[in-house]
Amino acid sequence: MSVVTIKDLAKRLGLSAATVSRALRDSYEISTETKQMVAKLAEELGYIPNPYASSLRRRKSKTIAVVLPEVADSFFSLAINGIESVAKDKGYHVLIYLTHESFEREKAILHQFKSGRVDGILISVSEETSSGGHIKEVIAAGIPVVFFDRICEDVETAKIITDDFESSYKATRHLTAQGCKRIAYLSISPALSISIKRTEGYQQGLADSNIPATESEIILCENDFEANYQMIKDLLKKKNRPDGIIASVEKLTPPVYLVCRDLNLSIPGDIKLISFTNLQSALILDPPLTTITQPAFDMGKSAAVILFKGIEKKNFDLLKQRVTISSELIKRVSA
Amino acid sequence: MSVVTIKDLAKRLGLSAATVSRALRDSYEISTETKQMVAKLAEELGYIPNPYASSLRRRKSKTIAVVLPEVADSFFSLAINGIESVAKDKGYHVLIYLTHESFEREKAILHQFKSGRVDGILISVSEETSSGGHIKEVIAAGIPVVFFDRICEDVETAKIITDDFESSYKATRHLTAQGCKRIAYLSISPALSISIKRTEGYQQGLADSNIPATESEIILCENDFEANYQMIKDLLKKKNRPDGIIASVEKLTPPVYLVCRDLNLSIPGDIKLISFTNLQSALILDPPLTTITQPAFDMGKSAAVILFKGIEKKNFDLLKQRVTISSELIKRVSA
Repeated sequence: MSVVTIKDLAKRLGLSAATVSRALRDSYEISTETKQMVAKLAEELGYIPNPYASSLRRRKSKTIAVVLPEVADSFFSLAINGIESVAKDKGYHVLIYLTHESFEREKAILHQFKSGRVDGILISVSEETSSGGHIKEVIAAGIPVVFFDRICEDVETAKIITDDFESSYKATRHLTAQGCKRIAYLSISPALSISIKRTEGYQQGLADSNIPATESEIILCENDFEANYQMIKDLLKKKNRPDGIIASVEKLTPPVYLVCRDLNLSIPGDIKLISFTNLQSALILDPPLTTITQPAFDMGKSAAVILFKGIEKKNFDLLKQRVTISSELIKRVSA
Repeated sequence: MSVVTIKDLAKRLGLSAATVSRALRDSYEISTETKQMVAKLAEELGYIPNPYASSLRRRKSKTIAVVLPEVADSFFSLAINGIESVAKDKGYHVLIYLTHESFEREKAILHQFKSGRVDGILISVSEETSSGGHIKEVIAAGIPVVFFDRICEDVETAKIITDDFESSYKATRHLTAQGCKRIAYLSISPALSISIKRTEGYQQGLADSNIPATESEIILCENDFEANYQMIKDLLKKKNRPDGIIASVEKLTPPVYLVCRDLNLSIPGDIKLISFTNLQSALILDPPLTTITQPAFDMGKSAAVILFKGIEKKNFDLLKQRVTISSELIKRVSA
């Protein structure tokens, strides 16, 4: 099967290629009859507009990009569903790009957007990203950008976040209310916006529970299961080991459970645990996990709605948009 | 910051735009000195080729598409990692498109590829996809396609699969060896290649264990947690309820655990369970889950390696490639 071109349509209809092209673009220069005739034949022959050629002309790719650290995390996979629920109604394609938590890959991905491959960008930055020069360049090139969850404070554009400070504060107070005296906080990046806010919420929670800062411990985890398992094992083998743990990202949950099992420590008897996660399996773990559950789907949806306003409406001030959606502490057995 | 164009480079160097363009394309008509001079300035000023314009010229987008049902499944998220590990080395961008198990969305996504948006496609079809006419059209338009995991039997092109029949057979025999007499099989689609193979393996396993077909039960599940929970509950409330269950996809695991808890049935005491999954949390569930673990990363990697051979090598017969990588039965506590 060969691809049908504008020339093929023109030949069949006895029109010029320019007329067919204008008819397909719904130009005011072309009569309604001609437009209908062209549209009918285009459909019959299965004509598909060449996206490169028509993008050069119209500067619209009908595509948005979602730039994410990873998809093996229930927060991001649910956020994608929220984004796609909006894009589908708008007739837009969604392209997902993964940075795998690498700043270099994030820069390379954003660099190519400057030449106009997509009409808008939703981004949650990598854990290595500490400033947003690469994102500012894309915005300067005229492409709307909306942050969700993990933002760059130094970039002025729409930001959809959750209440990271309050969530972490609530988790810490929940642990101290249950008698925890030494609470460790498992972090992933000292630079990331959400890490900073969550750490501050944790520290404020300790202060308000009259627990001295000397009794706190922040463990900087890595993007590697074995390394995290070992770090947590070292932590829990200490003489003055923590009696409470807050895991700030989902992937830190399995190593905590496994270390406790391997060291014969009971959850919640010896160690109480709260994790940030949206995993459905939280309720069938041994024991069921107390979680901070983020509004993942709603954050994705809200970010997409705002991005499309930025793409479609000239008088919409995308740069000033700020939305905060609350997370929820769901009490189960682990704390 | 404004975008640097070929004209800007030409003006600065006192050359024609055509010469600069040819130099950037490494044309034989241009001297090495001029090419180096152009390349140096292009790098200094941060010139980015317009992907639409250069794609029209070269018909290479340096992009491959991965078309998947969903990312909220550990098989697919690990397969993506395998694909990206190869694409990164090749300097290709990976675009992920989600069908959300809808045949209509899959068709719409593939339709647009015909106009040359990507250089190659990796696809695992939706559970609604029973034949591959839409994929044949893309192949006919000259775009290499490689299936992985979920294939269309009627489309002749490269296929990377796992041993679905053997895996399901092994799971069934494992359950009968532990004394199970009535084994239910939780399926998702009667049409999908992997479903057919897995169901056949299950049926052969029952036959070889001398369990009559009347004692088997195949439950067709849906893409909805609540509906699946209810169906499994109805199944396990029956008088002659199964004493063994094989869950053919990951998302069917949580509802089985929850129904058993709600009906006060013990796993593995009353019901033995084996699931197809790559979830790390399998080992921290209550009880730890016996799994069929698929070679997800390797399947993604292998599929990408073959796709790039198809893109790069004219004498490589992509259509004839067949690779089968074995899955593994990992025995834990649930069966």
